[in-house]
Amino acid sequence: MNIQVIVAGSTGKMGREVVKMLGQHEYFEFVCGVSRSLAGKDAGEAIGLSHLGVPLVASVQEAIQRYPHADVLVDFTQPRSVLEHAFMALNAGIRPVIGTSGLNEEQIERLKNEAQQKNLGAIVAPNFAIGAVLMMVFAAQAAKYLPHVEIVESHHDQKLDAPSGTAVKTAESILEHRSGIIEQGHNQEEELLQGARGAYYHGFRIHSIRLPGLIAHQEVLFGGSGQLLTIRHDSFDRESFMPGVKIAIEQVMKKDELIYGLEKLLEE
Amino acid sequence: MNIQVIVAGSTGKMGREVVKMLGQHEYFEFVCGVSRSLAGKDAGEAIGLSHLGVPLVASVQEAIQRYPHADVLVDFTQPRSVLEHAFMALNAGIRPVIGTSGLNEEQIERLKNEAQQKNLGAIVAPNFAIGAVLMMVFAAQAAKYLPHVEIVESHHDQKLDAPSGTAVKTAESILEHRSGIIEQGHNQEEELLQGARGAYYHGFRIHSIRLPGLIAHQEVLFGGSGQLLTIRHDSFDRESFMPGVKIAIEQVMKKDELIYGLEKLLEE
Amino acid sequence: MNIQVIVAGSTGKMGREVVKMLGQHEYFEFVCGVSRSLAGKDAGEAIGLSHLGVPLVASVQEAIQRYPHADVLVDFTQPRSVLEHAFMALNAGIRPVIGTSGLNEEQIERLKNEAQQKNLGAIVAPNFAIGAVLMMVFAAQAAKYLPHVEIVESHHDQKLDAPSGTAVKTAESILEHRSGIIEQGHNQEEELLQGARGAYYHGFRIHSIRLPGLIAHQEVLFGGSGQLLTIRHDSFDRESFMPGVKIAIEQVMKKDELIYGLEKLLEE
Amino acid sequence: MNIQVIVAGSTGKMGREVVKMLGQHEYFEFVCGVSRSLAGKDAGEAIGLSHLGVPLVASVQEAIQRYPHADVLVDFTQPRSVLEHAFMALNAGIRPVIGTSGLNEEQIERLKNEAQQKNLGAIVAPNFAIGAVLMMVFAAQAAKYLPHVEIVESHHDQKLDAPSGTAVKTAESILEHRSGIIEQGHNQEEELLQGARGAYYHGFRIHSIRLPGLIAHQEVLFGGSGQLLTIRHDSFDRESFMPGVKIAIEQVMKKDELIYGLEKLLEE
Repeated sequence: MNIQVIVAGSTGKMGREVVKMLGQHEYFEFVCGVSRSLAGKDAGEAIGLSHLGVPLVASVQEAIQRYPHADVLVDFTQPRSVLEHAFMALNAGIRPVIGTSGLNEEQIERLKNEAQQKNLGAIVAPNFAIGAVLMMVFAAQAAKYLPHVEIVESHHDQKLDAPSGTAVKTAESILEHRSGIIEQGHNQEEELLQGARGAYYHGFRIHSIRLPGLIAHQEVLFGGSGQLLTIRHDSFDRESFMPGVKIAIEQVMKKDELIYGLEKLLEE
Repeated sequence: MNIQVIVAGSTGKMGREVVKMLGQHEYFEFVCGVSRSLAGKDAGEAIGLSHLGVPLVASVQEAIQRYPHADVLVDFTQPRSVLEHAFMALNAGIRPVIGTSGLNEEQIERLKNEAQQKNLGAIVAPNFAIGAVLMMVFAAQAAKYLPHVEIVESHHDQKLDAPSGTAVKTAESILEHRSGIIEQGHNQEEELLQGARGAYYHGFRIHSIRLPGLIAHQEVLFGGSGQLLTIRHDSFDRESFMPGVKIAIEQVMKKDELIYGLEKLLEE
Repeated sequence: MNIQVIVAGSTGKMGREVVKMLGQHEYFEFVCGVSRSLAGKDAGEAIGLSHLGVPLVASVQEAIQRYPHADVLVDFTQPRSVLEHAFMALNAGIRPVIGTSGLNEEQIERLKNEAQQKNLGAIVAPNFAIGAVLMMVFAAQAAKYLPHVEIVESHHDQKLDAPSGTAVKTAESILEHRSGIIEQGHNQEEELLQGARGAYYHGFRIHSIRLPGLIAHQEVLFGGSGQLLTIRHDSFDRESFMPGVKIAIEQVMKKDELIYGLEKLLEE
Repeated sequence: MNIQVIVAGSTGKMGREVVKMLGQHEYFEFVCGVSRSLAGKDAGEAIGLSHLGVPLVASVQEAIQRYPHADVLVDFTQPRSVLEHAFMALNAGIRPVIGTSGLNEEQIERLKNEAQQKNLGAIVAPNFAIGAVLMMVFAAQAAKYLPHVEIVESHHDQKLDAPSGTAVKTAESILEHRSGIIEQGHNQEEELLQGARGAYYHGFRIHSIRLPGLIAHQEVLFGGSGQLLTIRHDSFDRESFMPGVKIAIEQVMKKDELIYGLEKLLEE
């Protein structure tokens, strides 16, 4: 049986990719797109694809009214609207798959209660790039056995903050799984040029490279006696989120509670 | 409480590294070394370290007789002797940690029965390089979510066989965890020079690089829409086995059965 | 003094990038674009930039008539038209910079004679990605001192041919600079899986990786006693041609003959 | 005709490798080794090789007296003795090949005058790892065309200084070949963790990784629009100096002056 999907913001940058991805899998059925400005048009034609015979409507509310038997709402729109949309969906028996890092703990808690009460699956994830999520999961596992670690992340030279959010999240996750703080390097180590050894984070180091041409890359290096284990992720394109969205749509159908973070779906 | 360790072949290449490693951890106590040719000497002096006050004896049997309260026997000697040693150890209530890929299934089965009967832990592993084992474990996990994969292994140019044993074992493990055979690449793909696309293995490809200077390296590459996940292991030295041996000694004390493969110890 | 530039096909994929690049350097002045279908519009607005006050005309001929004092014609249009355009330009005292691999030896020879007769610089290059050109130049130099080499090129999985054109060109260039054929690897080397050692090319090996997500990447590996030298190029985007185009425009002004291949400009 | 070679310190760590290398090339003839403590023994047996029929003598002076027709003196001994040895050699018409970074400018100048006066070749090089030298040469060339650069060097965790000497030398060489200081990265870039962006060196950044297991590695990354060029050197072993020594012995025979730095031999 097919999974029927409503896509909020289906003409936006992420929404377009979701629409394309749904079309590539027979067991997904894209039933309705939402776009305030392009409502009334065909959801395929509006984004430069062929005619799909799928309508664009002006709001998530309208989409739910017209397609009350839909299974899943995929929502990568603004943080301020996703929560409201998710409550509407759960009320209608539709499971939300939400991509945002903008919800606070209290909002996530409210959504969790709602999903539990309705006995419905719901997924919220700050990062749907499955390769990046796997990198973080593997890095945490590796840190148990090879606790000497450094992180090197590389991005285009217009990025303002260093280290990247993904690097910090990876570092937090490593820290949780290492036993205690291990001071790495020689204790008489000396920086001849200040900053050479990178940023200090609870005993290990993070390095940020910024060059034109680069996109978004990260390496986690684990050194042990006579060996090196490297886990690397290269993100070239926003398409990279689609395998994660696909897994989330499949898995949300099997759940009866809120899941926060794509990594939770991987451990099964 | 310390773990008391007997080391078979403690003056051999692997044995030396084990002796050095034991000396670096307070909770390990090296009680006796075995070396037919150097029996009678100090186990430290015999391998160019300082005097350790630990004797070298001529056989595993003698070591067990003199140190019946030892906890663990570490054995990286010949495949034909390790089995006999392991039975002796289990009979004396000593837990064996064995590094060899030379035991057949029937031998492993016999050892398993013996360990079970004695209610004692025992560990046999073909590969103690923990980074390599983690690479294989992670590759199998990643293949579930990013099934498009290629393996590139690189070794020194005097290696006779291609691909390497580790590459084949990684490939088998990936195959088990991917769902079905996925034919990768374009179906009209054409090799202008024969062999360019590497070795075909159940739908994916393995490439072997051989150059002077190289030691033992492997990369597993997972491609998905807009992204690449790379898991790489570099082995520079036989010291690389020691973190795995350390884990095995610690874990064998907590077990009451035979464990085959270091990866089994990692999943907890 | 500024360099005045006419861009043929300025609304095409490559032309757009050239127009953007010209705008980023004060000493370049974009004076006229050519676009049959959009003639009459502003050259900036036609490609989604702001109003530039630069006209689009319908043919290279018209552009030359209106801007006879232009310095350079940049032409990334069809192979069948670039030759004609180049002759027009040289006749008007304008120096052509042409990006195409579609000219045959006889055509290049004719262009060479024309440039010589007019005493004008002209540049034709099959590849303007300066990083890729540097990779090839460095690989050829390195092969003189570290003759043991393998090439690994990686592209998206919809590429039909293996190895890539760049890999073959790199291999040819290496072959020219190595002294004689060196048979690499052990002479009793054995492929347990056919193709593992890649494509054989005059004594060395080329490997082609194809995975979704990848774009265009190449590594040239040189092994020597105890060491490895790696030269790698990653191409993420067609913007990658622009630094090469910039150099070509600057250099063509200093030349009085035809230069074939961007690498010729690098050796000075 | 063979090149006859005397090796100073032929039983030391570097000397042994030189002796082995000489034995691998027919056109080299190892005529005499120098070793104060092992004088009188066979130069092969003294280092665990087979009998070579080559004597060990107690001083360079004695070696020169006994083999006045030798062609080359290879000397990797102490900085305080190499200069004296080199003068002796030049006086006897023997060309010195010296590996040390310990000579000051005045000493090099004196040696230069002596070589010129005798009309003999002489080579002094601080680094004989040809791959590392090529990396530095290529990095300097690349910086002319792709001026946005970062250096990442990785060493074992017992190294005291950061960045490494090779990284600093590479950076100096890049600086010489870039035109002016280019401030890289966004001008509002912010370090959320201090040191993340590495050491600042005249507009670009150097990063130092320290992990157990690592040996000596360096990557120079050049970013441009839509592309990345990477030049990497891995040094696994002191054997890595031998190809450079081989080239130096061959080239010193063709010179009639002092050459400082292996890179000078590469540019021809």
